[in-house]
Amino acid sequence: MEIIDTLKNGYKIFQDSERFKFGIDAIILSNFAFNQIKRDEKIIDLGTGNGIIPLMLTKSKAKNIVGLEIQEENVKLAKKTVEINQLEEKINIVQGDIKLVSENFQKHSFDSVLTNPPYMINNHGKQNPNDAKLIARHEILCNLEDIISAADFLLKPNGKFFMIHKAFRLPEIFNSMINHKIEPKRMQMILPFADKEANLVLIEGRKNGNPRLQIEKNLIVYEKPGTYTKMIEDIYSSFETN
Amino acid sequence: MEIIDTLKNGYKIFQDSERFKFGIDAIILSNFAFNQIKRDEKIIDLGTGNGIIPLMLTKSKAKNIVGLEIQEENVKLAKKTVEINQLEEKINIVQGDIKLVSENFQKHSFDSVLTNPPYMINNHGKQNPNDAKLIARHEILCNLEDIISAADFLLKPNGKFFMIHKAFRLPEIFNSMINHKIEPKRMQMILPFADKEANLVLIEGRKNGNPRLQIEKNLIVYEKPGTYTKMIEDIYSSFETN
Repeated sequence: MEIIDTLKNGYKIFQDSERFKFGIDAIILSNFAFNQIKRDEKIIDLGTGNGIIPLMLTKSKAKNIVGLEIQEENVKLAKKTVEINQLEEKINIVQGDIKLVSENFQKHSFDSVLTNPPYMINNHGKQNPNDAKLIARHEILCNLEDIISAADFLLKPNGKFFMIHKAFRLPEIFNSMINHKIEPKRMQMILPFADKEANLVLIEGRKNGNPRLQIEKNLIVYEKPGTYTKMIEDIYSSFETN
Repeated sequence: MEIIDTLKNGYKIFQDSERFKFGIDAIILSNFAFNQIKRDEKIIDLGTGNGIIPLMLTKSKAKNIVGLEIQEENVKLAKKTVEINQLEEKINIVQGDIKLVSENFQKHSFDSVLTNPPYMINNHGKQNPNDAKLIARHEILCNLEDIISAADFLLKPNGKFFMIHKAFRLPEIFNSMINHKIEPKRMQMILPFADKEANLVLIEGRKNGNPRLQIEKNLIVYEKPGTYTKMIEDIYSSFETN
């Protein structure tokens, strides 16, 4: 069922309760990238879903934000969201395949690439390839290597790459980034609770950057079950007041 | 000046106040590896200095521990330490170059490789190559790639690799390990204080392992300046009582 949610920053977003609704991951990634985006940047969100990340970055210094999405139903929702918020000048929703970015975009044409990609390795092939939620969560239509390869193609020299992903895949992520000359420069582990192990990781890379990783303090999500920490409340508030 | 220190576990260790004395890093690495070492393993410590890591692992289940060291003065100290503790049956100190391990050892002949290597990149070449402390701290005689390449040569299939290193070099470490088919399997960040960023990282790798990184809770070193945390006190105690 299609619904309209109103975000804390006042924007409205179309979602479909049968499909993958945006989660806290997209908000955390937007926050991680927000202050790194410089004036008049051209940026792209790979696998934008219903367009939550472009919407969150509308009030950044970026000039133009592209949301690339392969699933037609998501593209429709994202375009409706752009229209209802009158953001056609700032956000372009493009239907297309991450594996075929050269069909839609010029090489080295973006200042920043963001992505909140499918996290889970698709090593069984038994999933229904038409299931929208599975496509959003599992590497059915594209995998980690496809995404970093697309970022490599799209980024200008010294361009920035921002990704949120499963922490247990960190070695593979760093290896693929380095192979594509996107040097990992900043990392933040995300823990569900202070006394638990990291389950997600935020990564910032720099095309053609020099090696030196800055490790930020852990981001803790919950104070107790159902109650966000101040760190997370502050992230939500920052989008409210920008 | 040559001195003999007595460790908490009762062993004595020869050190030279003019040279690089063992630090907490070696103790933390030994603790990180200790319980992973299985019965009758043959293990090697690359760049053993005065032999602190073999000494710490004497009470593990390992059958034999080799300490490889290039600097003659360190080799002398390490051998004296082995003798005074009557550990000749368990520890062999070998003088040799990490870059030329095939001269001293058989390929794929060790169950575990440990290393607390020089941390700092030697990109100036201005250091005095005869300075023992510089050699211990800077990549003058061997670099990260040399060490991981040596581990690749020495490890049996499914052999284990344990290293402590600077956290800011993590991407390079993972990339080199993966290129040498030593899959990163476990990681622990080390923070000087709870509210500071990680400065060191402990890594366990598995030769020919499958990708999946386990991230352990941060290890905090100091409660306040000059006072270790309970985590560190417990590590020291564990060596005392083993």
